[in-house]
Amino acid sequence: MNIGFIGLGQMGVAMAANLLKAGHTVTVYNRTRGKAEPLAALGAKVAGSVAEASGNDVVITMLADDKALEAVALGEGGIVASLPKGAMHVSSSTISPALSETLTEAHAKAGQRYVAAPVFGRPEAAAAAKLFVMAAGAPDAVAAAQPIFDAIGQKTFAVSETPKAANLVKLSGNFLIGCVIESLGEAMTLVGKGGVDRNLYVEILSSTLFPGPIYGTYGKLLAEGNFQPPKFAAPLGQKDIRLTLAAAEAMNVPLPLASLLRDRLLTLMAQGGADLDWSAFGRLAARDAGEG
Amino acid sequence: MNIGFIGLGQMGVAMAANLLKAGHTVTVYNRTRGKAEPLAALGAKVAGSVAEASGNDVVITMLADDKALEAVALGEGGIVASLPKGAMHVSSSTISPALSETLTEAHAKAGQRYVAAPVFGRPEAAAAAKLFVMAAGAPDAVAAAQPIFDAIGQKTFAVSETPKAANLVKLSGNFLIGCVIESLGEAMTLVGKGGVDRNLYVEILSSTLFPGPIYGTYGKLLAEGNFQPPKFAAPLGQKDIRLTLAAAEAMNVPLPLASLLRDRLLTLMAQGGADLDWSAFGRLAARDAGEG
Amino acid sequence: MNIGFIGLGQMGVAMAANLLKAGHTVTVYNRTRGKAEPLAALGAKVAGSVAEASGNDVVITMLADDKALEAVALGEGGIVASLPKGAMHVSSSTISPALSETLTEAHAKAGQRYVAAPVFGRPEAAAAAKLFVMAAGAPDAVAAAQPIFDAIGQKTFAVSETPKAANLVKLSGNFLIGCVIESLGEAMTLVGKGGVDRNLYVEILSSTLFPGPIYGTYGKLLAEGNFQPPKFAAPLGQKDIRLTLAAAEAMNVPLPLASLLRDRLLTLMAQGGADLDWSAFGRLAARDAGEG
Amino acid sequence: MNIGFIGLGQMGVAMAANLLKAGHTVTVYNRTRGKAEPLAALGAKVAGSVAEASGNDVVITMLADDKALEAVALGEGGIVASLPKGAMHVSSSTISPALSETLTEAHAKAGQRYVAAPVFGRPEAAAAAKLFVMAAGAPDAVAAAQPIFDAIGQKTFAVSETPKAANLVKLSGNFLIGCVIESLGEAMTLVGKGGVDRNLYVEILSSTLFPGPIYGTYGKLLAEGNFQPPKFAAPLGQKDIRLTLAAAEAMNVPLPLASLLRDRLLTLMAQGGADLDWSAFGRLAARDAGEG
Repeated sequence: MNIGFIGLGQMGVAMAANLLKAGHTVTVYNRTRGKAEPLAALGAKVAGSVAEASGNDVVITMLADDKALEAVALGEGGIVASLPKGAMHVSSSTISPALSETLTEAHAKAGQRYVAAPVFGRPEAAAAAKLFVMAAGAPDAVAAAQPIFDAIGQKTFAVSETPKAANLVKLSGNFLIGCVIESLGEAMTLVGKGGVDRNLYVEILSSTLFPGPIYGTYGKLLAEGNFQPPKFAAPLGQKDIRLTLAAAEAMNVPLPLASLLRDRLLTLMAQGGADLDWSAFGRLAARDAGEG
Repeated sequence: MNIGFIGLGQMGVAMAANLLKAGHTVTVYNRTRGKAEPLAALGAKVAGSVAEASGNDVVITMLADDKALEAVALGEGGIVASLPKGAMHVSSSTISPALSETLTEAHAKAGQRYVAAPVFGRPEAAAAAKLFVMAAGAPDAVAAAQPIFDAIGQKTFAVSETPKAANLVKLSGNFLIGCVIESLGEAMTLVGKGGVDRNLYVEILSSTLFPGPIYGTYGKLLAEGNFQPPKFAAPLGQKDIRLTLAAAEAMNVPLPLASLLRDRLLTLMAQGGADLDWSAFGRLAARDAGEG
Repeated sequence: MNIGFIGLGQMGVAMAANLLKAGHTVTVYNRTRGKAEPLAALGAKVAGSVAEASGNDVVITMLADDKALEAVALGEGGIVASLPKGAMHVSSSTISPALSETLTEAHAKAGQRYVAAPVFGRPEAAAAAKLFVMAAGAPDAVAAAQPIFDAIGQKTFAVSETPKAANLVKLSGNFLIGCVIESLGEAMTLVGKGGVDRNLYVEILSSTLFPGPIYGTYGKLLAEGNFQPPKFAAPLGQKDIRLTLAAAEAMNVPLPLASLLRDRLLTLMAQGGADLDWSAFGRLAARDAGEG
Repeated sequence: MNIGFIGLGQMGVAMAANLLKAGHTVTVYNRTRGKAEPLAALGAKVAGSVAEASGNDVVITMLADDKALEAVALGEGGIVASLPKGAMHVSSSTISPALSETLTEAHAKAGQRYVAAPVFGRPEAAAAAKLFVMAAGAPDAVAAAQPIFDAIGQKTFAVSETPKAANLVKLSGNFLIGCVIESLGEAMTLVGKGGVDRNLYVEILSSTLFPGPIYGTYGKLLAEGNFQPPKFAAPLGQKDIRLTLAAAEAMNVPLPLASLLRDRLLTLMAQGGADLDWSAFGRLAARDAGEG
């Protein structure tokens, strides 16, 4: 396939590299051109503009937030203005369901196809082509994008025919991880004050009730209190909880746990935690118990 | 080993049967004698009193709550009064750290040994000798009890030299499970109202971020809304959250999530949910969003 | 003074009438012209456009929300475009501090003066010229507007030299009232289930600890469960809590009580309460306790 | 009337003095005899034992907590054992509804009368005979006690025929005050960070929406951050919230605000606040916003 790829952060670079490895023709674009060079070395073409990257069968976006994607997709010379009729936009960024809906309508009006395909997985998983893809959109479009998903991930879930549903699932994933961080923070404070070694506790949890990467990874971070450099910085986590609350509010869904996470993240930011990994809010339970 | 076993509920029967299978001599006691019969068929002796069951090297208790264990251990003709000097009480019930501390002192004063050894695992795990044992007490006592733990479980963790720490870890486990239930209840309401099939959502979660039995099991219960018959009834869950909050309060540890779970469980009870599985409180998020 | 008055809802009509009674020359404007007629009968001129109403020494706005004020103030032919140099905009609407800041800058740039002057008081207080005015802006501008405040209110507080601070105080007032509603809802559920008559309870509270209108008024509403017709409809209360949370978020201030109010109001809306007085969310505590 | 009075703390001394002034014959008892001396100077008899103080028409108790009242009322030589048949126990302490119920039964069995009569008001109000009395019990008993209430208070409310209902109302009052403290703490953080002077803000609130002593008094304490010496120490406030939650739990009433207050007070205690006025927890909102 001829694929344009816009957004070369840690995740995007890894995903584009795997598309190249799978034999696709990939034209990459990034605002800061330097980030494209490692991919050029792997055979990517480097586009000078969004419009140039959009002159393909498919353009994939992997950008930081709503604002960045809005600029790239809806602005002058943007994707909607440049993508050929019948071509497809695969949006993998973590964005609001509201923006996903706006894009659904804009692409439909322009005779283009739109698939929301956010992913679960950290940069290491992206590098190993082990992402999980939450795909949503018209079934034929999702089917057509399958070779892309196969190149970047280990499994694809067809979440819904409505693109924004995939964005909701993605947001809910980060919300659930946030709940794990808070609950671990509280539980570790309790058992820690009761004399149990925090690292042993994490080992117990992750080898009994809670196998899988989340409890182990975040438990270790919390036990060691080591939040720098951030793997996923606090302002990004805060953004995702904000998007979750906004999407929930639009549907009249109260989420008391998301409200708690919001308040914890605000406290973290107020106390100077903008440079820390977002999981640092999980130490506030200990602070409230007079520890640390 | 000559072992007394007191408390033949679903868990206790399975544990005692595995001790017999492992070749130990087991004398069982239950207030309702009928529950002892299947074990008699497997070779157990049936004691007529707590005192009789306590005339062994080790007596294990697996009872419903603090009150039951207090009566059996500290009452007239109870374990403390009947256990030989140097013999050991292994307490596997889910009880308060405070009672565990009381027993630690009472047994020490009587020249007996005391190990707290609560377990993770539902009745099926008990039957399969696949429990996880959280053991705490004097190291030589924990070591002496190891053959017992090997007979009933798949792995033992030596949590601490202070018995009550194991009870705290056990309570924290149920607290963490409660947090999973609440967070799943909220997330499923959000994505469900957004058009995602709840069963598909559970499948996504348990095959990506959250492998392991907890998310899958409780996710399915919540997706199907099927809470009868209860595997772990609401009043038992409520009791564990109450014990968690009390233990936390004694150490000045605020646990906002446990407070939320407490309020949810009170709502469930107020609305007639005493006969349901405790996970039924996870549907209150949907109700608050106008669904169900 | 020659005064333009834009926004003739229940509050605005009463305020404009009091300005006329105080001898000011008042030119009124409302999108729906019919609302201006009772004031014309009292001697008001009726303007055909925002621009016409803005051709005065002072223009006062009393509109429903940010969106309405933005349209009137910043749109084509709006206040900023029409107000003479040196003239003043007095903004009494309950709006976001962010919009107040935008207006402060826009008016400064246009050589005009801007005073934020939101008020405390329901329509009856407005009719009786008994409002409390929270005024903020340049001291000379606030002083120049004093005759206006004297005509509509019983007391003026000079809150700050920064206009948006007055908007923050106004929002905080509705937030505090929301907290009273929730706390009364919980307390009345507790004593009510314990056998105390709810009306007697409200009488006790308002004649002992909590004199003043808020506890008595809302206590009575909650005791009687009578939320129609709304004096202040649920969506308006929800809007104010949303603005409060947004203003707080912009300053990294977590407000757990505002988060709780937000969730309660979402529940109320999800269950069909959009037509009720906002205090209806105060009954959710009773519902959670299995009553009503 | 011949009145025994047990419990001579700040409140009790003032109440007993007012009974003497009203012409009653008062026999006082306190564990620490020295506290009785100022009252002896006013004409009180000083009893050497609880039993001696109980040999009267009425015995009034004003003690610190459940434990103290239990010892005095139900112990050997206690009130129930010593009070004549037909005589009355008026219990003014802030105690649990559960203990009030126990006393109701014990006195009934002994042929004695029991009235719960907790009061609203700080020591200054007690000294000025300006307390508010929440009385509950058999109507003839409450009527018989009226001369006592007239001597110590400005108004009596006949809350219920069930004594414990008065204790519930008393607890609910402290709960509502706690809610005011938390809401003020949050609101003051918000407006304070937005540039509004905190003392001015308290003045605005208490002269507009929230007249009466509570908002003004606690607002001032919070604005000045001056919590020593305590008028009502943190552990006492914590005890009252604990009793409120326990009474609510017994009736399946979730109280999310009380849960929040509980967590705030635990944090205050964990951070060394046991010697502060309980309102000090109202500063935690500011701390969470990075201030103080």
